[in-house]
Amino acid sequence: MFEPFWKEVGDDATVKISGWEKMSYTSSCDDDICWFLEPAFANEVARLHRIVNNAATDGRYIIVGVGSTQMIHATLHALASIELRHPVNVVSAAPYYSMYPGIVDLMKSGLYHWAGDAAAFRGDDNFIELVCSPNNPDGTIRHAMLGKEAGKRVHDMAYYWPQYSPMQGPADHDIMLFTLSKATGHAGTRIGWALVKNKEVAREMAKFITLNTIGVSKDSQVRAAIILKVISDGYEFPKPSGAPQFFHFGQHKLADRWRRLRRAVQESGQFSLPRFSPEFCEFFKEYAETYPGFAWLRCEDQKINDCEDFFKRINVLTRSGKHFGVGQEYVRISMLDTDANFDVFIKRISSLD
Amino acid sequence: MFEPFWKEVGDDATVKISGWEKMSYTSSCDDDICWFLEPAFANEVARLHRIVNNAATDGRYIIVGVGSTQMIHATLHALASIELRHPVNVVSAAPYYSMYPGIVDLMKSGLYHWAGDAAAFRGDDNFIELVCSPNNPDGTIRHAMLGKEAGKRVHDMAYYWPQYSPMQGPADHDIMLFTLSKATGHAGTRIGWALVKNKEVAREMAKFITLNTIGVSKDSQVRAAIILKVISDGYEFPKPSGAPQFFHFGQHKLADRWRRLRRAVQESGQFSLPRFSPEFCEFFKEYAETYPGFAWLRCEDQKINDCEDFFKRINVLTRSGKHFGVGQEYVRISMLDTDANFDVFIKRISSLD
Repeated sequence: MFEPFWKEVGDDATVKISGWEKMSYTSSCDDDICWFLEPAFANEVARLHRIVNNAATDGRYIIVGVGSTQMIHATLHALASIELRHPVNVVSAAPYYSMYPGIVDLMKSGLYHWAGDAAAFRGDDNFIELVCSPNNPDGTIRHAMLGKEAGKRVHDMAYYWPQYSPMQGPADHDIMLFTLSKATGHAGTRIGWALVKNKEVAREMAKFITLNTIGVSKDSQVRAAIILKVISDGYEFPKPSGAPQFFHFGQHKLADRWRRLRRAVQESGQFSLPRFSPEFCEFFKEYAETYPGFAWLRCEDQKINDCEDFFKRINVLTRSGKHFGVGQEYVRISMLDTDANFDVFIKRISSLD
Repeated sequence: MFEPFWKEVGDDATVKISGWEKMSYTSSCDDDICWFLEPAFANEVARLHRIVNNAATDGRYIIVGVGSTQMIHATLHALASIELRHPVNVVSAAPYYSMYPGIVDLMKSGLYHWAGDAAAFRGDDNFIELVCSPNNPDGTIRHAMLGKEAGKRVHDMAYYWPQYSPMQGPADHDIMLFTLSKATGHAGTRIGWALVKNKEVAREMAKFITLNTIGVSKDSQVRAAIILKVISDGYEFPKPSGAPQFFHFGQHKLADRWRRLRRAVQESGQFSLPRFSPEFCEFFKEYAETYPGFAWLRCEDQKINDCEDFFKRINVLTRSGKHFGVGQEYVRISMLDTDANFDVFIKRISSLD
């Protein structure tokens, strides 16, 4: 979806690496914790968070990983490793990101296991709560559901960027996860990062990544640094030509898509979508709408038992609510596909009488 | 160590990716198993194996991973997932690669666990044997130690390239693992691959990588394809100028380092090194020596109890034999460091009387 922006940017966003560069496992940073972290990448991460003001970075350790998926593995492993009682229960409030159960139970680890919906959790303080905010799939702002005093929390903030959600000031949770794929659109680069308060947790996360993949691609970190720099430069040093700025471009595009989707849904009369109130966005300095990266659609027609199946019959790929811990009257639909695919989707949903 | 070669190659090995390219999770290949595999990378892997003739690729599935470390995780997970009895015992003949135990037990998985030296294994056929050949740390050619009929085998062939070992024809084991870091020197790119005979195993490996990291950096795969292409082109289309060819360069360099190390070791009289007979190398088409990527050094002096500690006192970084499942009279020393570091190492070992 963000591809047209990057085409317009042109050469400034191009990465070029010679055959003899970046050959080593280690990086040139002095970081004794995340020994594989590229300094340029770490600098641009901190810089962009400062500009957007969406997350506190001062005094935080930056850990880089292979997408936010590896970051989740690393975080759970780190938090569970410093716990005494195993397995630790991993929970998240439904509807939760459909990959959480599969990620958590992938290794059938003795350290932790998936324990389902946080709202239904009846255990003691031996838990880790995954708090996805804004939430995948439904775009809501989430807060930890289980008692603040006990357990541990991981804040998955992949979508806490101005194109999706009004910025409400810098988050300052203990562990915050981000990913390039949702921030800038570069999913193929497989770069995620964590901002971590506790040194011991940060160290354990880096140890996990060392034994899982011996660090993270230097090429991807170098490319990610360039991509992030282009976005930051666009705001700190705007071009007189009025070149597009990334978050403005992204919000404009998502606003247009949501407008078209809401109209089609309203005309069909068979579905509903979440409603969000406008909030003052501290980044855009004006009231802004919420435009989630996914549409969390509910089939209101009682005759439709399985909403995913209904959409399959009109050739629209969705993911059933049952994977998110709720009923199959819900489906999740991506709002981040290419322009051509999104057009086809709107056309098909509009063709329903 | 291979950096000077890549400097001489110059621009031909440079990767250049525009901001709008390779943004997607998926690749453009038609591969229904490894959906994140870049076609150009897969083609260059198969091509280089054909030129070197070190591994059979026909009818094999190519799976790409974040270095051979993730490939090991993926392989164990795949093989154990299709087993009925858990945990499966994972073994390797000592001295074994010191990271195997840590990799196998990282997740305290219920699917498999580290069961130590294959030579000491007394279980039934519920095992996976890791066969590292040429072996890290000692450079020997290895064959599976446990009965061929039972259990499962993974061949870690990271060092089966002409610069390290005479090529004895194409290996054709069920699962063979390779890594760019040992083949070309590009450790920071974090690219490994597997050649897999069985479709079901290949599919399970790709599923693991999907849930571990949602695929592998496209940037790294694109760069790896370029790097491998330069090496293959050097042999298929040699330049009239007599430009250096990669495996010749690597072997020449390692031969020189091994000559200097053997001389220093002989002069000191306190250590011994493995001995290898020359073998006919089907790649170089002549008798060739074995030049392992590591020196597996034994302290012969009875007064030295802890060989790693002995070297630490002369500021030489080694890894004790105890991590490889044998005694601390052994240490492993890298032969692949930069020229400057290798020179310092030889100087220090030569300064011993």
